[in-house]
Amino acid sequence: MTERWIHEVHRGDASFGLRVTSFVHAEVSPHQRIEIVETAALGRVLVLDGVFQTAERDERAYHELLAHPALCAARSIARVLVIGGGDGGTAREVLRHPEVERCVMVEIDRAVVEACRAHLPSIGGSAWSDPRLEVRFEDGARFVRECRERFDVVILDGSDPIGPSAGLFGRALYEDVRRLVGDDGLFALQTESPAIDLALFLEMQGALRASFERVHPYFGAVYLYAAGLFSWTVASGVTDPRAPRPARVAAIEAGCAHYDAEVHRAAFAAPPFVRRRLAR
Amino acid sequence: MTERWIHEVHRGDASFGLRVTSFVHAEVSPHQRIEIVETAALGRVLVLDGVFQTAERDERAYHELLAHPALCAARSIARVLVIGGGDGGTAREVLRHPEVERCVMVEIDRAVVEACRAHLPSIGGSAWSDPRLEVRFEDGARFVRECRERFDVVILDGSDPIGPSAGLFGRALYEDVRRLVGDDGLFALQTESPAIDLALFLEMQGALRASFERVHPYFGAVYLYAAGLFSWTVASGVTDPRAPRPARVAAIEAGCAHYDAEVHRAAFAAPPFVRRRLAR
Repeated sequence: MTERWIHEVHRGDASFGLRVTSFVHAEVSPHQRIEIVETAALGRVLVLDGVFQTAERDERAYHELLAHPALCAARSIARVLVIGGGDGGTAREVLRHPEVERCVMVEIDRAVVEACRAHLPSIGGSAWSDPRLEVRFEDGARFVRECRERFDVVILDGSDPIGPSAGLFGRALYEDVRRLVGDDGLFALQTESPAIDLALFLEMQGALRASFERVHPYFGAVYLYAAGLFSWTVASGVTDPRAPRPARVAAIEAGCAHYDAEVHRAAFAAPPFVRRRLAR
Repeated sequence: MTERWIHEVHRGDASFGLRVTSFVHAEVSPHQRIEIVETAALGRVLVLDGVFQTAERDERAYHELLAHPALCAARSIARVLVIGGGDGGTAREVLRHPEVERCVMVEIDRAVVEACRAHLPSIGGSAWSDPRLEVRFEDGARFVRECRERFDVVILDGSDPIGPSAGLFGRALYEDVRRLVGDDGLFALQTESPAIDLALFLEMQGALRASFERVHPYFGAVYLYAAGLFSWTVASGVTDPRAPRPARVAAIEAGCAHYDAEVHRAAFAAPPFVRRRLAR
């Protein structure tokens, strides 16, 4: 029997592969190639343009750490904007907070949402039917440029800085988000792996610092990304995101596998090789 | 041109691959197959029986976190025992502490040490010529069983629980180490990835708890191991390893890339999916 594998190659030099037990879905949307495969190690995995995005048995390590540090530190979380996040996992975590009154999700690719709702239903879960969720299929960068609504928290759940997510990296977007969240709001996003590409991590930190007064990266690990140390960042005008609000954590922690108040505080400890470069 | 890659397969279901730019060394010792390859992503990599052990451009993420939490928390660190660790990286970190008077390293496979000294000289560095280091080529499990010398800190730098390292896992060894370190000493070891194999992680924690009154796992990420969340553990009779001694950290932190006092404290924050299982 021939084994079937799917591999993601990092910059031509390293690869992470998963053994595939079945090919569940494949299509080419106007934006990208979308595949969902069943793997032996991690359950079903969403692959966009050949890059692993999220896996059933691993996604909470990413989504909980993307969403909850900002949501548990912000002054208010009544209005939340999610840019990207077509698998629904980030919206699901956002909507677990009872204080959230409205969550707008702006995803460029309707086909990703439809494929994930059909074949990865556990990731979006009850979010898709939550009346507080508004899903808009449009370009996230344009949305934040033209948006006049204010949000308490903006979460960028984009892919790598290539393909349809390319416009979701860099100063123009960050300036627009800074305007949307005002002085008190928070902006959370994944900021790649300083272990694999320290220069890219530092470039993103620099771009964020040009638009936000406070920029706090935090660290963890996601098996699917095979990245060693992975990072997210919370940026803000005035709010220090490093200390969670106990009542906010208490409202969600029973359902968390990877996030709690202790993990929140610990995640902001930067390894010295990162801290020294950030201090320059 | 045909590209050359080397892959490590995890339990038949996942694989991590590195592009090889040259094959530096290969031999079969009485204990295992030893390979050293030059890779584009991580420099030279030591591979034992097909399993990635250590890489020039990544090894400090593992060795600093294996050695320094125990060394910076122990009451005394005059006498240190390293079991395994044939690449020399753990001995190098141990010997950076000026308080260490004697470091015994017990490695079963002389060929690993000779290959690493020849082809991975930066990993052992000055440790190999340090007069405080005594290298013994013998079975680590037998050494601790028969040893009557006391050590302040014992560090187990073994491979996975297969092959020549198999005897370095489990209760018999841990009982012997508990006797060697007494009530005040500390035992540090890698305890695999709870993200990949939570059952194995918990089995090791259980075996440690049968021999040690205090067992404190801590967490981080190592790119080469492609394991998502990786873990180490410090076990002891009475000493709480979670708070580092400031003078101990101050003596070594300038030379650290991955370890400092803040990382030390933060690393002991267990994710809830691990913490809940440990509390049962």
